[in-house]
Amino acid sequence: MKRFLLPLLVISLSFMPQKKTRVIFFGDSITQAAVNAGGYIVRIDSMCKKEGMGDKFEFIGAGISGNKVYDLYLRMEDDVLAKNPDVVIIYIGVNDVWHKASSGTGTDADKFERFYNAILKKLKERNIKVIMCTPAVIGEKTDFSNQQDGDMNAYSNIIRSIAQKNGLPLVDLRRAFLEYDSKNNPENKDRGILTTDRVHLNAMGNQLVADAMWSVIKGK
Amino acid sequence: MKRFLLPLLVISLSFMPQKKTRVIFFGDSITQAAVNAGGYIVRIDSMCKKEGMGDKFEFIGAGISGNKVYDLYLRMEDDVLAKNPDVVIIYIGVNDVWHKASSGTGTDADKFERFYNAILKKLKERNIKVIMCTPAVIGEKTDFSNQQDGDMNAYSNIIRSIAQKNGLPLVDLRRAFLEYDSKNNPENKDRGILTTDRVHLNAMGNQLVADAMWSVIKGK
Amino acid sequence: MKRFLLPLLVISLSFMPQKKTRVIFFGDSITQAAVNAGGYIVRIDSMCKKEGMGDKFEFIGAGISGNKVYDLYLRMEDDVLAKNPDVVIIYIGVNDVWHKASSGTGTDADKFERFYNAILKKLKERNIKVIMCTPAVIGEKTDFSNQQDGDMNAYSNIIRSIAQKNGLPLVDLRRAFLEYDSKNNPENKDRGILTTDRVHLNAMGNQLVADAMWSVIKGK
Amino acid sequence: MKRFLLPLLVISLSFMPQKKTRVIFFGDSITQAAVNAGGYIVRIDSMCKKEGMGDKFEFIGAGISGNKVYDLYLRMEDDVLAKNPDVVIIYIGVNDVWHKASSGTGTDADKFERFYNAILKKLKERNIKVIMCTPAVIGEKTDFSNQQDGDMNAYSNIIRSIAQKNGLPLVDLRRAFLEYDSKNNPENKDRGILTTDRVHLNAMGNQLVADAMWSVIKGK
Repeated sequence: MKRFLLPLLVISLSFMPQKKTRVIFFGDSITQAAVNAGGYIVRIDSMCKKEGMGDKFEFIGAGISGNKVYDLYLRMEDDVLAKNPDVVIIYIGVNDVWHKASSGTGTDADKFERFYNAILKKLKERNIKVIMCTPAVIGEKTDFSNQQDGDMNAYSNIIRSIAQKNGLPLVDLRRAFLEYDSKNNPENKDRGILTTDRVHLNAMGNQLVADAMWSVIKGK
Repeated sequence: MKRFLLPLLVISLSFMPQKKTRVIFFGDSITQAAVNAGGYIVRIDSMCKKEGMGDKFEFIGAGISGNKVYDLYLRMEDDVLAKNPDVVIIYIGVNDVWHKASSGTGTDADKFERFYNAILKKLKERNIKVIMCTPAVIGEKTDFSNQQDGDMNAYSNIIRSIAQKNGLPLVDLRRAFLEYDSKNNPENKDRGILTTDRVHLNAMGNQLVADAMWSVIKGK
Repeated sequence: MKRFLLPLLVISLSFMPQKKTRVIFFGDSITQAAVNAGGYIVRIDSMCKKEGMGDKFEFIGAGISGNKVYDLYLRMEDDVLAKNPDVVIIYIGVNDVWHKASSGTGTDADKFERFYNAILKKLKERNIKVIMCTPAVIGEKTDFSNQQDGDMNAYSNIIRSIAQKNGLPLVDLRRAFLEYDSKNNPENKDRGILTTDRVHLNAMGNQLVADAMWSVIKGK
Repeated sequence: MKRFLLPLLVISLSFMPQKKTRVIFFGDSITQAAVNAGGYIVRIDSMCKKEGMGDKFEFIGAGISGNKVYDLYLRMEDDVLAKNPDVVIIYIGVNDVWHKASSGTGTDADKFERFYNAILKKLKERNIKVIMCTPAVIGEKTDFSNQQDGDMNAYSNIIRSIAQKNGLPLVDLRRAFLEYDSKNNPENKDRGILTTDRVHLNAMGNQLVADAMWSVIKGK
């Protein structure tokens, strides 16, 4: 009898629906817009299917406009943990820097780090894989003369350092955007290359983010 | 045999150390300083003992300089819940308002409310009693010409509204300070009546806070 | 011969075109909008003509959006002195306060006072009469819970003090707006009573400003 | 008799004290400190004398702590024009950028440019030679991660552009500091290489500024 068991098991497995890897994109308005047509999450989903991995991944957007790192921390129970993701991609930081100038309600660097680490701790406790991202740009000028360039570099350094300390994969969007702009923005414009308005992504920006993220996600 | 049990039990109870009501003061630098000599927590402890309730209450300071409402939320597990308090007095808001102007890192009103409610939810889940406070002053001028007066009133209104909605006792320090200053600051000075530096409490300020809090605490 | 001179002189004078009192309104976007239909300068002009003084006054708007006190100082040669006014009404201060929070580029109180005095000095040197105004409102809530209420009161106090020291007439718009709102804003709304957007004037606001200014102007 | 006059005149001229070139340093606290021992103006004076040009130049400090470009404009009559300088070195911009974050009272870029041009116009009308400087640093980190690096670069670009349009000599302190720090700050520290506190000059910083300025001044 035992001889017959193995073939049967193999057959039954091949018909069982595979459990998909659930990926949550956790961020601000840039991520909120990414589930719309042309958005980077939609693009990742398309690439995934095109590469024949549509049955292996499931993508969920969890971006809310105006969010800073502490807003992610506050809503992570409801918007992330409750959904039992396998992977969470954290893409935050623009508002933490930007709101200092625009409304006086940015996030101090030391607290940015503290809340980021608190988010990681909770995800780790649940054995959820994490992919970290640096915030891309507030302004696309290539000579570091965008008002927030100093802070954008500083907060990106914080994120790089956290990723390294925790051995976590990093999608270094800031580096990628700076490199792309340095080659493709000869007129030193502040928008229009990868963003529509200095911050939010145009088609090319969404594709760049999708490419960078997907290459890391599919390794998970 | 049963007849003897009750008297024995009563006797043993009367010798058992009574479980003290543990009160945690949860706040910023004003509360951090309150455990020092002359501080409002020390004064409350003295009043408590003087009134013969030293065996009924236990007071713990949990103030950290620079804290805003979201900092309280972040550290409430370690600094409050882990200590199993019976009562938590929340005294926060000055930095949420002040840091807008001093470093561009204040807290938006809607997020102030959201984090405050999140703190209350966690305390309620643990059946911990809550006493709320409005932030007192940033500047003691009595004609509402201190730079942050508008926001201090606005954030105090938020706190009052939350207290009312949740049926929680409120120590309205802002109202108490405004009333005291209106009577005792005829020269319209910005400090020196209840504060040393427009924000942190002098002896009179500490006493006023202690009196206001103690009258509510001892009812718990 | 001399007896005939006086009657002739009187007759000739009565036919000579009277030199109009030239009044320049010097301010920010509120004043810039005041030359449009329904604006307070248009309303003053109408009242002036209605009261039969159309040949006695000439009104010129000199408001530019975003202006602070130092912007007035910078452009006063071209926009005020070059036009040889008899009277200048200075209505400034909203952006000096507001831009602290909205872009980090407000005006420190001590510098506000210094530039204001520098403007007055130049006008005095040219014997130009000055009417000063306090800035009205940033938000119409009546319980001093508009974010900038503290600073609006503080900068109004500075203006009141300058007016008093220099014996200059003051149109205290802030006081007038606060009084009007206290009676006509029972719901404690932040706009819609005298402003459209917390700052810029609706019809009622323009009329209130026009009334307050005109009663002082016609005494000049 | 007339024959003897000319030789006598020549002789007397050769003993007449030569009219010195009067140089005014017009700036903020960095320039205010530059007249103290070790300050860059004192160093320039020493170098000047050492090179035997002590009878050709006269140096006057006109720096006031906290000054922004519009403060220079306000006090230029009293502190510069009234002293009849031959050369004015304008060294401004740090506070225009810095105060955005530290007190919400920085200077918008467009207004920075406008006031700078207004200062130049007044100096040109008086045929006073001008030497312009870019602001050096707020923080000495070399990876453009100092909070204000973006704005420091932006406002330096404005100054460079104004200098070029007006054909004025530029002491590009920002470039010089960035180059020096890139070679001498391997640990990416935020202070201690050319500044004591991220902004104000230490001995090396004062010497660097003195060298850069003196090489341009002595050409005047």
